[in-house]
Amino acid sequence: MHTPATPMPSVATLFLSAPEMVRLIRRKGLQQCLVGISDNIRDDFLRWSDFDKSARVANHSAEGVIELMPISDNTFYSFKYVNGHPRNTRIGLSTVMAFGVLADVQTGTPLLLSELTLTTALRTAATSALAAKTLARPDSRVMALIGNGAQSEFQALAFRHLVGIEEVRLFDVDTAATAKLIRNLQHTGLRLVPCYSVAQAVMGADIVTTVTADKTHATILTGDMIEPGMHINGVGGDCPGKTELHADVLTRGSVYVEYAPQSRVEGDIQQMPLDFPVTELWEVLAGQKPARSHRDEVTIFDSVGFALEDFSALRFMYDTARALSLGERISLIPQLEDPKNLFGTLQSHVKSMRRVA
Amino acid sequence: MHTPATPMPSVATLFLSAPEMVRLIRRKGLQQCLVGISDNIRDDFLRWSDFDKSARVANHSAEGVIELMPISDNTFYSFKYVNGHPRNTRIGLSTVMAFGVLADVQTGTPLLLSELTLTTALRTAATSALAAKTLARPDSRVMALIGNGAQSEFQALAFRHLVGIEEVRLFDVDTAATAKLIRNLQHTGLRLVPCYSVAQAVMGADIVTTVTADKTHATILTGDMIEPGMHINGVGGDCPGKTELHADVLTRGSVYVEYAPQSRVEGDIQQMPLDFPVTELWEVLAGQKPARSHRDEVTIFDSVGFALEDFSALRFMYDTARALSLGERISLIPQLEDPKNLFGTLQSHVKSMRRVA
Repeated sequence: MHTPATPMPSVATLFLSAPEMVRLIRRKGLQQCLVGISDNIRDDFLRWSDFDKSARVANHSAEGVIELMPISDNTFYSFKYVNGHPRNTRIGLSTVMAFGVLADVQTGTPLLLSELTLTTALRTAATSALAAKTLARPDSRVMALIGNGAQSEFQALAFRHLVGIEEVRLFDVDTAATAKLIRNLQHTGLRLVPCYSVAQAVMGADIVTTVTADKTHATILTGDMIEPGMHINGVGGDCPGKTELHADVLTRGSVYVEYAPQSRVEGDIQQMPLDFPVTELWEVLAGQKPARSHRDEVTIFDSVGFALEDFSALRFMYDTARALSLGERISLIPQLEDPKNLFGTLQSHVKSMRRVA
Repeated sequence: MHTPATPMPSVATLFLSAPEMVRLIRRKGLQQCLVGISDNIRDDFLRWSDFDKSARVANHSAEGVIELMPISDNTFYSFKYVNGHPRNTRIGLSTVMAFGVLADVQTGTPLLLSELTLTTALRTAATSALAAKTLARPDSRVMALIGNGAQSEFQALAFRHLVGIEEVRLFDVDTAATAKLIRNLQHTGLRLVPCYSVAQAVMGADIVTTVTADKTHATILTGDMIEPGMHINGVGGDCPGKTELHADVLTRGSVYVEYAPQSRVEGDIQQMPLDFPVTELWEVLAGQKPARSHRDEVTIFDSVGFALEDFSALRFMYDTARALSLGERISLIPQLEDPKNLFGTLQSHVKSMRRVA
């Protein structure tokens, strides 16, 4: 075998499994993770035009949906695999499971393979909190949290740490879910108030977060519940045929979205005409479009989850894992002595010669 | 903690690393792998309408492209991540690197994470051979192989084992690549004939395979080289701006493709008008469209690689790995006691209680 003139670049991929991500979040601290991801999202949203963006690619079935969410700039490429199967919890599985990859755009080498189930909950909450910091009244202290499932605690804590929410008013059709949330967050300093109805939870709240999972045109919020000055954080309406807000709610204020071409198909605004006016969040962050103009304005963040948020979160996890020496190296890609000799990996005598060399 | 009524379904994912795939191919045998994948591809192409198909999603950069290729039927979902960076070999990296996932459509659970660099070479060769078995003259024994890089040995062996090719006439602008191919295949029973030019290699061949990597409108084959009765297996023209066949070649015979909406953008037929007549390979396999009508007809398989071929290959690798007890289990997805309690995975007291229970 000839000796290559330059040393072989490594094609090993850093792997963050779900248990390793738990270690990372505990070591770094959940609050620091939410802050760091939110900062990355803001930074990346502020250079919106740097990205090669597209709406996610969805394969729908009777039971749910599986989606791929790719995005890239001149340095990194990322994608997320994520499913949405609302009936999964009945057989002991999560509604949403996810993983993804951060890759080097210059060579195509996958740098990081990471669990993204936990990370999606973090980045969704970080995005919601970033939007609320930008759009909600600055003195917001009370949030209604409708839907107390897998993502709810992350929303509550992101709004506590990033927005200053002190009281969370809880409602879920499954009272066990609410009891679980209260158990999980009892020592976090939040006032947790279980409510008997959506209307009771929403009444008097500064911010209303909806994060429900049914793949139906549900009507979680109706127009009569909306009070002047409220900020609505609509998280669960994120798929064609899956909405949470009555159309009346969407006409009660200004609607903000992540990426309009995707949100018009997947968000609550799928109920509205294609020319329904929306503002992309990055436009407000960049100062190109106004945020709320007065205390009594209603602002609505119709969130569906955009690939750039996963890109930002993957960057954060990659940096943090390397700083804390977490994760393991795996061989997704064959390490070749001669890149034109892929076939050589199958030949044992090549292998043994390499060992000798 | 409450005890779940039903046992938790496992969300562990079988992982086939690149070294483990080498073991699998050696244990199963390369010929058996090529035959098995080719059989799966034929079976899947014959139930074409069962699949939710789409053209792949590409992110282009100055150096290359990164693509995602999803597809699903009612049972499985698969996607492949694959790059194409022609200049990678100059820094010791492969032009094409790939990995992918096979998932359960009913729940979205990822069943298999697999290297697909080696597997892509196998499935591309298996597809080429399947097309040639269907389209080339049955008495084809001599193949010209233009481009002797990473995929070339797999093409040669697939044509030997599946089509009956006995002699392979070799050309590459990089003579070291040809020497490497001859070294790798010297004991396989193939007659290997290095040639000084494309024209010399092609002259008198029954089948011409082009598998070059430059991301340019190269003209590897010109119309004057094409002889009556030839079958052209065009593998390397697979990306916008990347072609191998002069437009004249495409008008010399009948053109067959995998999936027309993708091939019209990525294949050599990107040079032709959008109504240029093509036949999809599955239509011939299913008997809906004719194969070659006479000995002197020229047939052209303008291959770009379609997601269904990776789906078929992933099914084969999943079945084979389980039969041979290869691969390891990894935790891409958190294993939750209560799927609504994702947050609980972060709490150490929950963990310790679980250990006690």
